[in-house]
Amino acid sequence: MELSAYLPFWSKLEPRHRELLQQVVTECHFEKGRLIHNGSADCVGLYFVVRGRLRVFVMSEEGKELTLYRLLDRDICLLSASCLMRSIQFDVIITTEEDTVALHIPVEAYRRLMEESVVVANYTNELIAANFSEVMWRMDQIMNKKLDSRVAAFLLEEADLRGSNGLDMTHEQIANHLGSAREVVTRMMKYFQTEGLVKLGRGSIELLDLDGLNRLAAESMR
Amino acid sequence: MELSAYLPFWSKLEPRHRELLQQVVTECHFEKGRLIHNGSADCVGLYFVVRGRLRVFVMSEEGKELTLYRLLDRDICLLSASCLMRSIQFDVIITTEEDTVALHIPVEAYRRLMEESVVVANYTNELIAANFSEVMWRMDQIMNKKLDSRVAAFLLEEADLRGSNGLDMTHEQIANHLGSAREVVTRMMKYFQTEGLVKLGRGSIELLDLDGLNRLAAESMR
Repeated sequence: MELSAYLPFWSKLEPRHRELLQQVVTECHFEKGRLIHNGSADCVGLYFVVRGRLRVFVMSEEGKELTLYRLLDRDICLLSASCLMRSIQFDVIITTEEDTVALHIPVEAYRRLMEESVVVANYTNELIAANFSEVMWRMDQIMNKKLDSRVAAFLLEEADLRGSNGLDMTHEQIANHLGSAREVVTRMMKYFQTEGLVKLGRGSIELLDLDGLNRLAAESMR
Repeated sequence: MELSAYLPFWSKLEPRHRELLQQVVTECHFEKGRLIHNGSADCVGLYFVVRGRLRVFVMSEEGKELTLYRLLDRDICLLSASCLMRSIQFDVIITTEEDTVALHIPVEAYRRLMEESVVVANYTNELIAANFSEVMWRMDQIMNKKLDSRVAAFLLEEADLRGSNGLDMTHEQIANHLGSAREVVTRMMKYFQTEGLVKLGRGSIELLDLDGLNRLAAESMR
Protein backbone atom coordinates (compact mmCIF):
# COMPACT_ATOMS: atom_id res chain seq x y z
CA MET A 1 0.00 0.00 0.00
CA GLU A 2 1.47 3.28 -1.11
CA LEU A 3 0.19 5.45 1.71
CA SER A 4 2.28 8.36 0.54
CA ALA A 5 0.43 8.37 -2.77
CA TYR A 6 -2.98 8.67 -1.12
CA LEU A 7 -2.23 11.02 1.76
CA PRO A 8 -1.28 14.45 0.40
CA PHE A 9 0.08 15.41 3.82
CA TRP A 10 2.36 12.36 4.12
CA SER A 11 5.61 14.24 3.50
CA LYS A 12 4.73 16.79 6.21
CA LEU A 13 3.96 14.23 8.93
CA GLU A 14 6.25 13.65 11.89
CA PRO A 15 7.90 10.20 11.82
CA ARG A 16 5.82 8.96 14.79
CA HIS A 17 2.62 9.82 12.94
CA ARG A 18 3.80 8.00 9.81
CA GLU A 19 4.51 4.98 11.94
CA LEU A 20 1.08 5.17 13.54
CA LEU A 21 -0.58 5.24 10.13
CA GLN A 22 1.50 2.36 8.79
CA GLN A 23 0.36 0.28 11.75
CA VAL A 24 -3.38 0.95 11.46
CA VAL A 25 -4.19 1.43 7.76
CA THR A 26 -5.75 -1.61 6.10
CA GLU A 27 -6.92 -2.30 2.58
CA CYS A 28 -10.64 -3.11 2.27
CA HIS A 29 -12.54 -4.73 -0.57
CA PHE A 30 -16.25 -4.08 -0.91
CA GLU A 31 -18.67 -5.55 -3.41
CA LYS A 32 -21.00 -3.28 -5.38
CA GLY A 33 -24.09 -2.38 -3.37
CA ARG A 34 -22.50 -2.72 0.09
CA LEU A 35 -23.61 -0.44 2.94
CA ILE A 36 -20.44 1.24 4.25
CA HIS A 37 -21.84 3.72 6.74
CA ASN A 38 -25.32 4.22 8.15
CA GLY A 39 -25.80 7.64 9.74
CA SER A 40 -25.20 8.01 13.46
CA ALA A 41 -25.50 4.23 13.91
CA ASP A 42 -21.76 3.87 13.33
CA CYS A 43 -18.50 5.78 12.93
CA VAL A 44 -16.32 3.43 10.94
CA GLY A 45 -13.39 5.67 10.07
CA LEU A 46 -12.06 7.30 6.90
CA TYR A 47 -11.76 5.63 3.52
CA PHE A 48 -9.33 6.58 0.76
CA VAL A 49 -10.80 5.24 -2.47
CA VAL A 50 -8.19 3.33 -4.47
CA ARG A 51 -10.69 2.34 -7.15
CA GLY A 52 -14.44 2.06 -7.32
CA ARG A 53 -17.30 4.41 -6.47
CA LEU A 54 -19.10 5.42 -3.28
CA ARG A 55 -22.44 7.19 -3.08
CA VAL A 56 -23.09 9.55 -0.18
CA PHE A 57 -26.78 10.28 0.29
CA VAL A 58 -29.42 11.37 2.79
CA MET A 59 -32.79 9.77 3.47
CA SER A 60 -35.86 11.61 4.75
CA GLU A 61 -38.14 10.26 7.49
CA GLU A 62 -40.47 9.13 4.71
CA GLY A 63 -37.69 7.20 2.98
CA LYS A 64 -37.05 9.65 0.14
CA GLU A 65 -33.38 9.59 -0.94
CA LEU A 66 -31.19 12.38 -2.27
CA THR A 67 -27.62 11.90 -3.52
CA LEU A 68 -25.21 14.49 -2.08
CA TYR A 69 -22.13 13.43 -4.01
CA ARG A 70 -20.08 10.48 -5.26
CA LEU A 71 -16.51 9.56 -4.34
CA LEU A 72 -14.23 8.20 -7.06
CA ASP A 73 -10.60 7.04 -7.31
CA ARG A 74 -8.32 9.00 -4.95
CA ASP A 75 -11.25 10.73 -3.21
CA ILE A 76 -11.45 10.65 0.57
CA CYS A 77 -14.57 9.67 2.47
CA LEU A 78 -14.69 11.72 5.67
CA LEU A 79 -18.34 11.52 6.68
CA SER A 80 -18.03 7.81 7.51
CA ALA A 81 -16.02 9.19 10.45
CA SER A 82 -18.48 11.97 11.28
CA CYS A 83 -18.10 11.40 15.03
CA LEU A 84 -14.68 13.07 14.68
CA MET A 85 -16.55 16.38 14.88
CA ARG A 86 -19.20 17.08 17.49
CA SER A 87 -20.72 19.74 15.26
CA ILE A 88 -21.69 17.36 12.45
CA GLN A 89 -25.35 17.06 13.34
CA PHE A 90 -26.72 15.22 10.33
CA ASP A 91 -26.76 11.65 9.10
CA VAL A 92 -25.62 10.38 5.73
CA ILE A 93 -25.69 6.88 4.29
CA ILE A 94 -22.78 5.62 2.21
CA THR A 95 -22.91 2.66 -0.17
CA THR A 96 -20.66 1.28 -2.91
CA GLU A 97 -21.93 1.77 -6.46
CA GLU A 98 -19.15 -0.41 -7.92
CA ASP A 99 -16.81 -3.04 -6.52
CA THR A 100 -14.52 -0.84 -4.46
CA VAL A 101 -11.01 -1.05 -3.01
CA ALA A 102 -10.24 1.48 -0.27
CA LEU A 103 -7.64 2.20 2.40
CA HIS A 104 -9.21 2.44 5.83
CA ILE A 105 -8.01 4.62 8.72
CA PRO A 106 -9.70 3.87 12.06
CA VAL A 107 -11.38 6.77 13.85
CA GLU A 108 -9.23 6.67 16.97
CA ALA A 109 -5.97 6.86 15.03
CA TYR A 110 -7.22 9.73 12.87
CA ARG A 111 -8.54 11.56 15.92
CA ARG A 112 -5.09 11.37 17.49
CA LEU A 113 -3.52 12.68 14.26
CA MET A 114 -5.99 15.58 14.13
CA GLU A 115 -5.29 16.48 17.75
CA GLU A 116 -1.51 16.28 17.44
CA SER A 117 -0.79 17.46 13.90
CA VAL A 118 -1.76 20.88 12.62
CA VAL A 119 -1.17 19.58 9.09
CA VAL A 120 -3.79 16.85 9.48
CA ALA A 121 -6.19 19.23 11.23
CA ASN A 122 -6.00 21.72 8.36
CA TYR A 123 -6.24 18.95 5.77
CA THR A 124 -9.46 17.85 7.49
CA ASN A 125 -10.71 21.43 7.27
CA GLU A 126 -10.29 21.33 3.52
CA LEU A 127 -12.08 17.96 3.33
CA ILE A 128 -15.14 19.24 5.19
CA ALA A 129 -15.12 22.45 3.18
CA ALA A 130 -15.06 20.42 -0.05
CA ASN A 131 -18.01 18.27 1.07
CA PHE A 132 -19.85 21.40 2.19
CA SER A 133 -19.26 22.93 -1.25
CA GLU A 134 -20.69 19.85 -3.00
CA VAL A 135 -23.85 20.15 -0.92
CA MET A 136 -24.16 23.88 -1.63
CA TRP A 137 -23.93 23.11 -5.35
CA ARG A 138 -26.62 20.46 -4.97
CA MET A 139 -28.86 22.88 -3.09
CA ASP A 140 -28.45 25.49 -5.80
CA GLN A 141 -29.57 22.89 -8.34
CA ILE A 142 -32.63 21.97 -6.28
CA MET A 143 -33.63 25.59 -5.69
CA ASN A 144 -32.85 27.02 -9.09
CA LYS A 145 -33.15 24.32 -11.74
CA LYS A 146 -36.31 22.74 -13.06
CA LEU A 147 -36.47 18.96 -12.80
CA ASP A 148 -36.01 18.43 -16.55
CA SER A 149 -32.66 20.25 -16.37
CA ARG A 150 -31.63 18.23 -13.31
CA VAL A 151 -32.56 14.90 -14.96
CA ALA A 152 -30.64 15.85 -18.12
CA ALA A 153 -27.59 16.86 -16.04
CA PHE A 154 -27.80 13.62 -14.07
CA LEU A 155 -27.97 11.42 -17.20
CA LEU A 156 -24.93 13.19 -18.67
CA GLU A 157 -23.02 12.83 -15.38
CA GLU A 158 -23.83 9.10 -15.27
CA ALA A 159 -22.73 8.56 -18.85
CA ASP A 160 -19.51 10.37 -18.03
CA LEU A 161 -18.89 8.29 -14.88
CA ARG A 162 -19.45 5.03 -16.76
CA GLY A 163 -17.83 6.08 -20.00
CA SER A 164 -20.92 4.87 -21.89
CA ASN A 165 -24.13 6.37 -23.29
CA GLY A 166 -26.05 3.23 -22.37
CA LEU A 167 -27.18 3.36 -18.73
CA ASP A 168 -28.64 0.36 -16.93
CA MET A 169 -30.76 2.30 -14.46
CA THR A 170 -34.37 2.21 -13.37
CA HIS A 171 -36.52 5.31 -13.08
CA GLU A 172 -36.68 4.64 -9.35
CA GLN A 173 -32.89 4.84 -9.07
CA ILE A 174 -32.86 8.18 -10.89
CA ALA A 175 -35.61 9.48 -8.60
CA ASN A 176 -33.57 8.42 -5.55
CA HIS A 177 -30.55 10.34 -6.75
CA LEU A 178 -32.56 13.50 -7.35
CA GLY A 179 -34.87 13.41 -4.34
CA SER A 180 -37.89 13.02 -6.63
CA ALA A 181 -40.62 10.40 -7.13
CA ARG A 182 -40.52 7.50 -9.60
CA GLU A 183 -43.74 8.54 -11.36
CA VAL A 184 -42.37 12.03 -11.97
CA VAL A 185 -39.15 10.67 -13.47
CA THR A 186 -41.06 8.17 -15.66
CA ARG A 187 -43.18 11.00 -17.08
CA MET A 188 -40.04 13.04 -17.72
CA MET A 189 -38.21 10.13 -19.42
CA LYS A 190 -41.17 9.52 -21.75
CA TYR A 191 -41.12 13.19 -22.68
CA PHE A 192 -37.34 12.97 -23.30
CA GLN A 193 -37.99 9.97 -25.59
CA THR A 194 -40.62 11.80 -27.66
CA GLU A 195 -38.12 14.66 -28.04
CA GLY A 196 -35.51 12.20 -29.35
CA LEU A 197 -33.14 12.85 -26.42
CA VAL A 198 -33.11 9.24 -25.18
CA LYS A 199 -34.29 5.76 -26.09
CA LEU A 200 -35.91 3.78 -23.28
CA GLY A 201 -35.43 0.05 -22.84
CA ARG A 202 -36.29 -2.40 -20.09
CA GLY A 203 -34.36 -1.05 -17.09
CA SER A 204 -32.04 0.81 -19.44
CA ILE A 205 -31.70 4.22 -21.04
CA GLU A 206 -29.68 5.13 -24.09
CA LEU A 207 -28.63 8.73 -24.53
CA LEU A 208 -29.20 9.73 -28.18
CA ASP A 209 -28.88 13.52 -28.35
CA LEU A 210 -26.03 14.68 -26.09
CA ASP A 211 -26.15 18.25 -27.41
CA GLY A 212 -29.85 18.47 -26.66
CA LEU A 213 -29.34 17.09 -23.16
CA ASN A 214 -26.50 19.52 -22.57
CA ARG A 215 -28.64 22.46 -23.64
CA LEU A 216 -31.42 21.34 -21.33
CA ALA A 217 -29.00 20.80 -18.42
CA ALA A 218 -27.69 24.35 -18.80
CA GLU A 219 -31.13 25.98 -18.63
CA SER A 220 -32.02 28.18 -15.68
CA MET A 221 -35.34 28.41 -13.91
CA ARG A 222 -36.51 31.53 -15.76
CA MET B 1 -12.75 43.69 24.95
CA GLU B 2 -12.86 40.39 26.77
CA LEU B 3 -11.28 38.22 24.09
CA SER B 4 -11.11 35.30 26.49
CA ALA B 5 -14.90 35.34 26.81
CA TYR B 6 -15.45 35.07 23.05
CA LEU B 7 -12.71 32.70 22.01
CA PRO B 8 -13.35 29.27 23.54
CA PHE B 9 -9.77 28.25 22.72
CA TRP B 10 -8.19 31.27 24.47
CA SER B 11 -6.90 29.35 27.49
CA LYS B 12 -5.19 26.79 25.23
CA LEU B 13 -3.35 29.34 23.06
CA GLU B 14 0.38 29.86 23.28
CA PRO B 15 1.33 33.27 24.72
CA ARG B 16 2.65 34.52 21.33
CA HIS B 17 -0.72 33.74 19.72
CA ARG B 18 -2.61 35.55 22.48
CA GLU B 19 -0.40 38.56 21.89
CA LEU B 20 -1.02 38.40 18.15
CA LEU B 21 -4.78 38.37 18.69
CA GLN B 22 -4.67 41.24 21.18
CA GLN B 23 -2.83 43.30 18.60
CA VAL B 24 -5.20 42.70 15.68
CA VAL B 25 -8.71 42.27 17.07
CA THR B 26 -10.91 45.33 16.76
CA GLU B 27 -14.47 46.05 17.80
CA CYS B 28 -16.80 46.93 14.91
CA HIS B 29 -20.19 48.62 14.97
CA PHE B 30 -22.59 48.02 12.09
CA GLU B 31 -26.00 49.55 11.52
CA LYS B 32 -28.96 47.33 10.72
CA GLY B 33 -29.08 46.45 7.02
CA ARG B 34 -25.33 46.75 6.36
CA LEU B 35 -23.64 44.47 3.82
CA ILE B 36 -20.79 42.72 5.68
CA HIS B 37 -19.57 40.23 3.09
CA ASN B 38 -20.39 39.78 -0.58
CA GLY B 39 -19.39 36.36 -1.90
CA SER B 40 -16.00 35.95 -3.50
CA ALA B 41 -15.75 39.71 -3.98
CA ASP B 42 -14.08 40.04 -0.58
CA CYS B 43 -12.60 38.07 2.32
CA VAL B 44 -12.99 40.41 5.26
CA GLY B 45 -12.08 38.13 8.15
CA LEU B 46 -13.95 36.50 11.04
CA TYR B 47 -16.54 38.21 13.21
CA PHE B 48 -17.46 37.25 16.75
CA VAL B 49 -20.93 38.63 17.38
CA VAL B 50 -21.07 40.52 20.69
CA ARG B 51 -24.67 41.58 20.17
CA GLY B 52 -26.94 41.93 17.18
CA ARG B 53 -27.88 39.60 14.33
CA LEU B 54 -26.30 38.59 11.02
CA ARG B 55 -28.06 36.86 8.15
CA VAL B 56 -26.07 34.49 5.93
CA PHE B 57 -27.78 33.81 2.62
CA VAL B 58 -27.24 32.75 -0.97
CA MET B 59 -28.57 34.39 -4.13
CA SER B 60 -29.27 32.58 -7.38
CA GLU B 61 -28.29 33.95 -10.80
CA GLU B 62 -31.88 35.13 -11.14
CA GLY B 63 -31.70 37.04 -7.84
CA LYS B 64 -33.72 34.59 -5.73
CA GLU B 65 -32.52 34.61 -2.10
CA LEU B 66 -32.43 31.79 0.44
CA THR B 67 -31.42 32.24 4.07
CA LEU B 68 -28.90 29.60 5.23
CA TYR B 69 -28.74 30.62 8.90
CA ARG B 70 -28.56 33.54 11.30
CA LEU B 71 -25.77 34.41 13.72
CA LEU B 72 -26.70 35.76 17.15
CA ASP B 73 -24.84 36.87 20.28
CA ARG B 74 -21.63 34.86 20.82
CA ASP B 75 -21.87 33.15 17.39
CA ILE B 76 -18.87 33.22 15.10
CA CYS B 77 -19.06 34.21 11.45
CA LEU B 78 -16.51 32.14 9.53
CA LEU B 79 -17.76 32.39 5.94
CA SER B 80 -16.84 36.09 5.76
CA ALA B 81 -13.29 34.65 5.73
CA SER B 82 -14.04 31.90 3.22
CA CYS B 83 -10.72 32.45 1.42
CA LEU B 84 -9.10 30.71 4.42
CA MET B 85 -10.05 27.44 2.74
CA ARG B 86 -9.41 26.77 -0.94
CA SER B 87 -12.15 24.15 -0.94
CA ILE B 88 -14.97 26.55 -0.12
CA GLN B 89 -16.33 26.90 -3.64
CA PHE B 90 -19.55 28.80 -3.06
CA ASP B 91 -20.53 32.37 -2.35
CA VAL B 92 -22.65 33.64 0.50
CA ILE B 93 -23.82 37.15 1.29
CA ILE B 94 -23.86 38.39 4.87
CA THR B 95 -25.86 41.37 6.14
CA THR B 96 -26.81 42.74 9.55
CA GLU B 97 -30.46 42.31 10.52
CA GLU B 98 -30.06 44.45 13.65
CA ASP B 99 -27.53 47.03 14.80
CA THR B 100 -24.59 44.77 15.51
CA VAL B 101 -21.39 44.92 17.58
CA ALA B 102 -18.75 42.36 16.64
CA LEU B 103 -15.10 41.58 17.26
CA HIS B 104 -13.15 41.34 14.02
CA ILE B 105 -10.12 39.12 13.37
CA PRO B 106 -8.30 39.87 10.09
CA VAL B 107 -7.84 36.97 7.66
CA GLU B 108 -4.05 37.03 7.69
CA ALA B 109 -3.79 36.79 11.46
CA TYR B 110 -6.32 33.97 11.62
CA ARG B 111 -4.59 32.13 8.80
CA ARG B 112 -1.36 32.26 10.77
CA LEU B 113 -3.13 30.95 13.88
CA MET B 114 -4.68 28.09 11.89
CA GLU B 115 -1.33 27.15 10.42
CA GLU B 116 0.55 27.30 13.71
CA SER B 117 -1.96 26.14 16.30
CA VAL B 118 -3.63 22.73 16.21
CA VAL B 119 -6.19 24.06 18.70
CA VAL B 120 -7.29 26.83 16.33
CA ALA B 121 -7.26 24.47 13.33
CA ASN B 122 -9.55 22.00 15.09
CA TYR B 123 -11.78 24.79 16.38
CA THR B 124 -12.16 25.94 12.76
CA ASN B 125 -13.10 22.37 11.83
CA GLU B 126 -15.96 22.50 14.29
CA LEU B 127 -17.07 25.89 12.95
CA ILE B 128 -17.29 24.64 9.37
CA ALA B 129 -18.99 21.44 10.50
CA ALA B 130 -21.58 23.50 12.38
CA ASN B 131 -22.29 25.68 9.34
CA PHE B 132 -22.46 22.58 7.15
CA SER B 133 -24.98 21.05 9.59
CA GLU B 134 -27.17 24.17 9.42
CA VAL B 135 -27.26 23.91 5.64
CA MET B 136 -28.07 20.18 5.76
CA TRP B 137 -31.00 20.97 8.07
CA ARG B 138 -32.17 23.67 5.65
CA MET B 139 -31.94 21.26 2.72
CA ASP B 140 -33.97 18.67 4.59
CA GLN B 141 -36.66 21.31 5.13
CA ILE B 142 -36.68 22.27 1.45
CA MET B 143 -36.81 18.65 0.25
CA ASN B 144 -39.20 17.24 2.80
CA LYS B 145 -41.50 19.96 4.08
CA LYS B 146 -44.36 21.61 2.28
CA LEU B 147 -44.18 25.39 2.03
CA ASP B 148 -46.99 25.93 4.55
CA SER B 149 -44.96 24.07 7.18
CA ARG B 150 -41.83 26.03 6.31
CA VAL B 151 -43.67 29.39 6.51
CA ALA B 152 -45.18 28.42 9.88
CA ALA B 153 -41.75 27.35 11.20
CA PHE B 154 -40.21 30.58 9.93
CA LEU B 155 -42.84 32.81 11.59
CA LEU B 156 -42.35 31.00 14.92
CA GLU B 157 -38.55 31.30 14.62
CA GLU B 158 -38.86 35.03 13.91
CA ALA B 159 -41.19 35.58 16.88
CA ASP B 160 -38.70 33.73 19.04
CA LEU B 161 -35.72 35.76 17.76
CA ARG B 162 -37.52 39.06 18.40
CA GLY B 163 -39.28 38.00 21.58
CA SER B 164 -42.56 39.28 20.13
CA ASN B 165 -45.57 37.84 18.29
CA GLY B 166 -45.86 41.01 16.20
CA LEU B 167 -43.51 40.89 13.21
CA ASP B 168 -42.79 43.90 11.00
CA MET B 169 -42.02 41.96 7.83
CA THR B 170 -43.19 42.11 4.26
CA HIS B 171 -44.22 39.04 2.29
CA GLU B 172 -41.24 39.68 0.04
CA GLN B 173 -38.85 39.42 3.00
CA ILE B 174 -40.38 36.09 4.02
CA ALA B 175 -40.10 34.82 0.43
CA ASN B 176 -36.41 35.82 0.38
CA HIS B 177 -35.71 33.87 3.54
CA LEU B 178 -37.39 30.74 2.20
CA GLY B 179 -36.23 30.85 -1.41
CA SER B 180 -39.81 31.31 -2.60
CA ALA B 181 -41.73 33.98 -4.53
CA ARG B 182 -43.67 36.89 -2.99
CA GLU B 183 -46.96 35.92 -4.65
CA VAL B 184 -46.75 32.42 -3.21
CA VAL B 185 -46.12 33.73 0.30
CA THR B 186 -48.96 36.27 -0.01
CA ARG B 187 -51.38 33.50 -0.95
CA MET B 188 -50.16 31.40 1.97
CA MET B 189 -50.46 34.28 4.46
CA LYS B 190 -54.05 34.97 3.35
CA TYR B 191 -54.85 31.31 3.89
CA PHE B 192 -53.20 31.47 7.34
CA GLN B 193 -55.40 34.49 8.14
CA THR B 194 -58.62 32.73 7.15
CA GLU B 195 -57.55 29.83 9.40
CA GLY B 196 -57.10 32.25 12.32
CA LEU B 197 -53.38 31.54 12.59
CA VAL B 198 -52.27 35.13 11.95
CA LYS B 199 -53.64 38.65 11.53
CA LEU B 200 -52.21 40.63 8.61
CA GLY B 201 -51.53 44.37 8.81
CA ARG B 202 -49.70 46.82 6.57
CA GLY B 203 -46.16 45.39 6.42
CA SER B 204 -46.81 43.51 9.65
CA ILE B 205 -47.99 40.10 10.79
CA GLU B 206 -49.37 39.19 14.20
CA LEU B 207 -49.18 35.56 15.26
CA LEU B 208 -52.52 34.61 16.87
CA ASP B 209 -52.54 30.81 17.18
CA LEU B 210 -49.10 29.59 18.23
CA ASP B 211 -50.32 26.03 18.86
CA GLY B 212 -51.80 25.86 15.38
CA LEU B 213 -48.61 27.21 13.81
CA ASN B 214 -46.53 24.73 15.80
CA ARG B 215 -48.70 21.82 14.60
CA LEU B 216 -48.37 23.00 11.01
CA ALA B 217 -44.58 23.46 11.36
CA ALA B 218 -44.22 19.88 12.61
CA GLU B 219 -46.06 18.32 9.67
CA SER B 220 -44.18 16.12 7.25
CA MET B 221 -44.61 15.92 3.49
CA ARG B 222 -46.82 12.83 3.54
